Amino acid sequence: MATTAHPYWPRSLTLPGYVASARPGWQSAGAVAAGGAGLLALGWAMGGATRSPARRLAQGWFLLCAGIHGVLEGWFSLRHRDLPAATGLLADVWKEYAKADSRYMTSDDFTVAMETVTAWAWGPLSFLTFLAFLRQHPARYILQLLVSLGQLYGDVLYFATEAQAGWSHSDPQPFYFWGYFVGLNGLWVLVPGLLLADACRHLARAQCAFDRPPHKAR
Amino acid sequence: MATTAHPYWPRSLTLPGYVASARPGWQSAGAVAAGGAGLLALGWAMGGATRSPARRLAQGWFLLCAGIHGVLEGWFSLRHRDLPAATGLLADVWKEYAKADSRYMTSDDFTVAMETVTAWAWGPLSFLTFLAFLRQHPARYILQLLVSLGQLYGDVLYFATEAQAGWSHSDPQPFYFWGYFVGLNGLWVLVPGLLLADACRHLARAQCAFDRPPHKAR
Repeated sequence: MATTAHPYWPRSLTLPGYVASARPGWQSAGAVAAGGAGLLALGWAMGGATRSPARRLAQGWFLLCAGIHGVLEGWFSLRHRDLPAATGLLADVWKEYAKADSRYMTSDDFTVAMETVTAWAWGPLSFLTFLAFLRQHPARYILQLLVSLGQLYGDVLYFATEAQAGWSHSDPQPFYFWGYFVGLNGLWVLVPGLLLADACRHLARAQCAFDRPPHKAR
Repeated sequence: MATTAHPYWPRSLTLPGYVASARPGWQSAGAVAAGGAGLLALGWAMGGATRSPARRLAQGWFLLCAGIHGVLEGWFSLRHRDLPAATGLLADVWKEYAKADSRYMTSDDFTVAMETVTAWAWGPLSFLTFLAFLRQHPARYILQLLVSLGQLYGDVLYFATEAQAGWSHSDPQPFYFWGYFVGLNGLWVLVPGLLLADACRHLARAQCAFDRPPHKAR
């Protein structure tokens, strides 16, 4: 029967109306990797030669996040109910990733809620962070802190809910579990963690200077 | 049969081992209200007469949050699996609140994950925020921002996941749905939202002053 002929875990999952991806998984993954690398490079290039390499990399990161949150997660937040039957590149990208987490195929309550906030809050705020650093806007580290804490907390809950569920939604093959599920999402724990600490350091330095008389704050 | 004789929704829920609360609901709710009011008042009093009323209220709020996150949510994060059969004041408090959200009675994946982060991250950080304002520490607004964004995001996901689930876990009586579920949790959207905006304003002001030469930041 067509509804159980799918690659997702647990294998007992039924996905009414499921249509297999039209392209091989490596093409979907490759398209995301190429788009992501392009945004990272564009952010780096626009970062300007006067900034430190770490700051230029962070600029690339926020442009990359704006793209991924806005396009991939934006599509998911609007179309998740249609995903099993949907066709097209973005549907195929999610069908490929869902091998590592089938909660994306079943409109899981937490996954939809978290991805919707990510798409519509952290996506635009990532782009604003990118712009704020380009313009040296006084809100730049505040934005970096907001986006990074949002990503970090969302990702911690993403791992924790799956741990609660007994890690039951991923293909156990190392490529899917360790590469996609742990690897990709681990990146969104590691980098936001570093950027969060960096933002706190800069904001504390500014506050410290501001607190000295005659700027004594309440 | 004892396992279905409970006050929770949906009415079809089965709670093996469930033991009814030993005290009436108003006693459990009253104990929390009295403890919360005491912490709020203590925070206000320790805030000191030289600070503005709004800031003293915020001091009380962070002490209140430290208590609620640390004690109530700390207990839940450790004991949620035993809750249906547990006795004692803290179990009775959760059995009373769960009338407005039965996910607390069933160790719901998201609820446990979110409450665990709230207990062990936002709880201690709330207390640090309280201390940081007492001492005028340069990290005070950073801590206020971290705690408030964490509470706000957790609460948005809390409402959003229940919306996804069709608001099926609450007793539909206005006292439980509007009073406990919407009212109490709405407070944790409203107050953190205001404190988040306040922290951003103060941090931007300090950064703005710091960015002027000769403090020009990278």
